[in-house]
Amino acid sequence: MAGRIDGRLADLGIDLPPPMAPVASYVPWTKTRAGGVKQVWIAGQGPFQDGALHYNGCVGDTVSLDDAIVCARIVGLNILAQTKDALDGDLDRVVRCIKLGGFVCCTPDFTDHPKVINGASDLMVEVFGEAGRHARFAVGAPVLPMNTSVEIDAIFEII
Amino acid sequence: MAGRIDGRLADLGIDLPPPMAPVASYVPWTKTRAGGVKQVWIAGQGPFQDGALHYNGCVGDTVSLDDAIVCARIVGLNILAQTKDALDGDLDRVVRCIKLGGFVCCTPDFTDHPKVINGASDLMVEVFGEAGRHARFAVGAPVLPMNTSVEIDAIFEII
Amino acid sequence: MAGRIDGRLADLGIDLPPPMAPVASYVPWTKTRAGGVKQVWIAGQGPFQDGALHYNGCVGDTVSLDDAIVCARIVGLNILAQTKDALDGDLDRVVRCIKLGGFVCCTPDFTDHPKVINGASDLMVEVFGEAGRHARFAVGAPVLPMNTSVEIDAIFEII
Repeated sequence: MAGRIDGRLADLGIDLPPPMAPVASYVPWTKTRAGGVKQVWIAGQGPFQDGALHYNGCVGDTVSLDDAIVCARIVGLNILAQTKDALDGDLDRVVRCIKLGGFVCCTPDFTDHPKVINGASDLMVEVFGEAGRHARFAVGAPVLPMNTSVEIDAIFEII
Repeated sequence: MAGRIDGRLADLGIDLPPPMAPVASYVPWTKTRAGGVKQVWIAGQGPFQDGALHYNGCVGDTVSLDDAIVCARIVGLNILAQTKDALDGDLDRVVRCIKLGGFVCCTPDFTDHPKVINGASDLMVEVFGEAGRHARFAVGAPVLPMNTSVEIDAIFEII
Repeated sequence: MAGRIDGRLADLGIDLPPPMAPVASYVPWTKTRAGGVKQVWIAGQGPFQDGALHYNGCVGDTVSLDDAIVCARIVGLNILAQTKDALDGDLDRVVRCIKLGGFVCCTPDFTDHPKVINGASDLMVEVFGEAGRHARFAVGAPVLPMNTSVEIDAIFEII
């Protein structure tokens, strides 16, 4: 039986990618294992799609604002894929998206980081409704790993 | 009846600004809702004052170190305003400031980020005393949303 | 009687540095003090060794990739030193390294941030085994406090 959020993803026409293996010696997520408040911490995700990185380079240079917003949405899909993996496939266990931490590779004259990271923020609200609303930061970076345009990490409260 | 921290703010001559609406599709704070340890997560705040952004640009370029410290203090006031809003107006429910995450827009030759973010850190200690002492990071960024000089997010333990 | 992790550190030939005092008005760690899930939050650490900062400057400019990896490992040792201090000397109370947040000072053409932060990530796994595996982000910064090459903060679940 498909879960509530799986049904919501289907309604939205969203097919989550497989959770990507990390590119270094860390793990894609950790869970706190005891007590009343449980959290899952998702490692910084990039714009993987169909097994490859998309949207390389800096916003304001080789990447447009519109492209960067799409890029952030793809990063959001990877966050959801990792979260689902962390929850043994059951996204209904998400109580709340606590926070996104958004880094945007950009030129020094680009100041629309909030619009970029909205690509991921909007996705969380589409998928989880009110429970998808989160705190966040959105800041500029001169360069990101593997020259990706957007990197976002996340924290969810779970049951 | 004014609370203990409200009294402390009055003693310090601090008049908190109204909590600003977020500039994008997120929320200014989230609370974890169950269990023994409760946290409030404050989204990255900027130097809003009297409804406008102040201190635009990079430290080392158009913004001096002294200005940047004042800027960080204003950001800290906005963090307090959001925290008060999250706690239904009762800042006495703050058990501890857990962490500040500080981003400073700066030129590549500027290395005094800790002094800048002290503008907010000192404010937390003035207002909350020992409970205001926190972990933090302070790093440089090439540019920040809406060209602000300082962005800081925060996490508080609350009751 | 030496603890399990102290024994592991000895086996690895690791002699932890003394925990450094913070360079500004914050504290090197905070602990949440109640409830089932306990966390210790370690403030952003730099490459202090023998009381001095090492590896100044940006990767891709004055600092090589190999040097940056060593630098990140030294930062990791400082994280462990602060964690031990936070736990009254008993690193056996670490349940899990939840997350590292890694900032690498680098030139705009450098994209191997994950390899750099591995210097600290590998250390956590060497010392804590499976419990040392963590979520993390690794991003570029144009400059870091006191011109250090790497700054990393951390969160641990503790008992």
